[in-house]
Amino acid sequence: MSLNLTDAISIATAVKTRKVTAVEVVRATLERIQTRDVELNCFTAVTAGTALADAEKIDNQIEKGEDGGILAGVPFAVKNLFDIKGLTTLAGAKINAENPVATQDATAVAKLKQAGAILVGALNMDEYAYGFVTENSHYGATRNPNHITRVAGGSSGGSAAAVAASLVPITLGSDTNGSIRVPAALCGVYGFKPTYGRLSRAGVALFSTSFDHIGPFAGSIRDIATVFDVLQGADDKDPVCTTRPPVETRLIASLRNIDGIKIAIADDYFNQKAEPEALAAVQKVALALNVKDYVTIPEAHRARAAAFIITASEGANLHLEKLRSRPQDFDPATRDRFLAGALIPSNWYIQAQRFRKWYRDKVREIFQNVDVIIAPTTPITAPLIGQQTMILDGEEILVRPYLGQFTQPLSFIGLPVLSIPIRRPNALPLGVQLIAAPYNEAKIIQVAAYLETLETGFLCH
Amino acid sequence: MSLNLTDAISIATAVKTRKVTAVEVVRATLERIQTRDVELNCFTAVTAGTALADAEKIDNQIEKGEDGGILAGVPFAVKNLFDIKGLTTLAGAKINAENPVATQDATAVAKLKQAGAILVGALNMDEYAYGFVTENSHYGATRNPNHITRVAGGSSGGSAAAVAASLVPITLGSDTNGSIRVPAALCGVYGFKPTYGRLSRAGVALFSTSFDHIGPFAGSIRDIATVFDVLQGADDKDPVCTTRPPVETRLIASLRNIDGIKIAIADDYFNQKAEPEALAAVQKVALALNVKDYVTIPEAHRARAAAFIITASEGANLHLEKLRSRPQDFDPATRDRFLAGALIPSNWYIQAQRFRKWYRDKVREIFQNVDVIIAPTTPITAPLIGQQTMILDGEEILVRPYLGQFTQPLSFIGLPVLSIPIRRPNALPLGVQLIAAPYNEAKIIQVAAYLETLETGFLCH
Repeated sequence: MSLNLTDAISIATAVKTRKVTAVEVVRATLERIQTRDVELNCFTAVTAGTALADAEKIDNQIEKGEDGGILAGVPFAVKNLFDIKGLTTLAGAKINAENPVATQDATAVAKLKQAGAILVGALNMDEYAYGFVTENSHYGATRNPNHITRVAGGSSGGSAAAVAASLVPITLGSDTNGSIRVPAALCGVYGFKPTYGRLSRAGVALFSTSFDHIGPFAGSIRDIATVFDVLQGADDKDPVCTTRPPVETRLIASLRNIDGIKIAIADDYFNQKAEPEALAAVQKVALALNVKDYVTIPEAHRARAAAFIITASEGANLHLEKLRSRPQDFDPATRDRFLAGALIPSNWYIQAQRFRKWYRDKVREIFQNVDVIIAPTTPITAPLIGQQTMILDGEEILVRPYLGQFTQPLSFIGLPVLSIPIRRPNALPLGVQLIAAPYNEAKIIQVAAYLETLETGFLCH
Repeated sequence: MSLNLTDAISIATAVKTRKVTAVEVVRATLERIQTRDVELNCFTAVTAGTALADAEKIDNQIEKGEDGGILAGVPFAVKNLFDIKGLTTLAGAKINAENPVATQDATAVAKLKQAGAILVGALNMDEYAYGFVTENSHYGATRNPNHITRVAGGSSGGSAAAVAASLVPITLGSDTNGSIRVPAALCGVYGFKPTYGRLSRAGVALFSTSFDHIGPFAGSIRDIATVFDVLQGADDKDPVCTTRPPVETRLIASLRNIDGIKIAIADDYFNQKAEPEALAAVQKVALALNVKDYVTIPEAHRARAAAFIITASEGANLHLEKLRSRPQDFDPATRDRFLAGALIPSNWYIQAQRFRKWYRDKVREIFQNVDVIIAPTTPITAPLIGQQTMILDGEEILVRPYLGQFTQPLSFIGLPVLSIPIRRPNALPLGVQLIAAPYNEAKIIQVAAYLETLETGFLCH
């Protein structure tokens, strides 16, 4: 058969019904990576040997009549800040390359493997997850599969680009200020940042612990929801991670019904300081959903400022010893921001945390009247590799931080957010965020599944 | 009858059995305050009018055959950072004297009133609770009733001295780094700092929110336990306050049985850098309890350092606007520490909070093998008013911060601690801390009640 490597559940079904073997899937995947990734630079490590061995095990299980798991034979890869047993966890840093290899898989990696998925490698990122572009000075820039002169976004750039280029159907990334959603939007794939604390971060190199989330990238809602359900569940190794009911993937995927879900468009901060096409993407989604209501998320610009302060302070604390002893070994793009973070007065940090409580309560009030809020993911399409600035409304703007304009105020208080791809013919893709109250991932998935049914008439044209 | 104003339950019993009226009790109390407080300076406000009116109401209730409450007719006073309806909450500050009057009582004040107790005034403290001496440059120093050339300790100095001088049987104070326990020890009364979050701080001017506790001072364990039980219970206005079972005052007071309670002496950090008499006081308590075991609380010196950093940072954040606009109106003793706190790098603060988590877990492990730990409250007896330094082991030491040497590492992680008075003939009193795991106040009360039975032969001689 001709292998379609873009849909995880289709692959698993084919493997389980023995229309294809897991080994054949993995071989085809490795070949595609070998061919395409020279140009794209998504992968920092390809685990061909263990992948083929794992695939063989899955095939043997299925031959014996065992189930193989919901993701049987599905290749996946993870941002190189997830621990992979036997590999050194780089976290995008040259300094970390000196670390010993990980002695066990991160919880999320282990859970996907238990579900039958096959790890094929580690993916490029901004150093220590501190960036929105994946122009890594040590490991090279990851290129956008939609146009190779463009960035893939970051910090989970490799994760987004690998799915967009159909190298693997599923990847994992992490999101502190937008690091899943920004590259998902710029590459044109789904990127899901669930509620803070819902997925275990055990075995993941942290950046700013009170903001760090992990989550999946995929090309379909069914795949996103399936991976999310596989990853869910309390984990003693991540104390903030607790058990919640699954989103019931299959039910939602079959329902595709959004009756009774109250949806509104974020106005004010989320409806300005963006290129017209980014705001038009939101309007397109609103039209498709027949949504006319607006809500205001108050003081979002302060939330972004506070997120900058906390991120820089906590990040600097984590890396302080190395910043002192060997600053020259940091990526210049992160070093100066970490050093600045180390000099932030405690008062700013405390004030930012105090504001955060106020803001969380205010945003919770909004969700008493609305279930899902729509907002742009990024204010612009993927900038050029190396591009520093752009002109917006006659004003020169720094491109890189600007990419987090609409994502930072949401991760700041741990809300679940899915970036859905707005693919456009002859134009770079964009993303639209679907935002819900904490632990209301199911409503997001439901709305996204409904939108996906309209895709041929809507998202792709 | 001749009124004994030192024991709350005795007063309530006398009032309820109509051996004395509440009005008589309050009149006698007001007279005593008028006579003695000129010299001691415990009170910053005496609420004679409302106190007499409240007493009259209690007398009317009792005349009608109603109960009057467990503290019927018992006079009490509170540190002037508790809101008292109709008074301005000073928090020891000149700046706060410009604030409007409080529109309602703090939760703790309201609860004591509901139990029949009668508020007679507000008590002196260090400005914004930042100090261990109550030498307040705006409202004067509170003098130690045991020797008027000596400090009462702080920051709840007025609260401790008022009980020690038998002006009132019960007072309330607050404790962030030792502000209940230090003055209790220096004045020779009981001072109780329950588990962080167990008593509501609603209506209390805060200092360092993640450390602030409130608690009672009294002359007997029965009074301490009774007030504690009256104050307990969840309060929506203080989000950290939750409901727990009462310590069952009467049961414990009658039991006075410590069989099965594992007690140990804190060694290492808590057994050095103190005057011999402070360590001897601990040994005296250990001997009375027949305790020979020692436990080590690890890294207590770091806990104290971290407590300093967090307190200074959070305190500075709270007062920053005023520190900028009118530093000259602060007490010189607090101003410089607040200003220094405003300049602490966020990295120190974050590192201190990270250490705190580690330390909390380590100390929790200790409580798997022991119920109550004994340690000195202060390393020295009350210093002279105005005394800046002392010589210890040939080294010159700053007296004021040194007073918190043994209290700071315990409030740092919210442990419940009772300072019991070690009264000594012809010598200044000292205190010994009884420390338990979070929410194990009952065990502390039980051990203290047992020690109190030995008092004539032990504590007083």
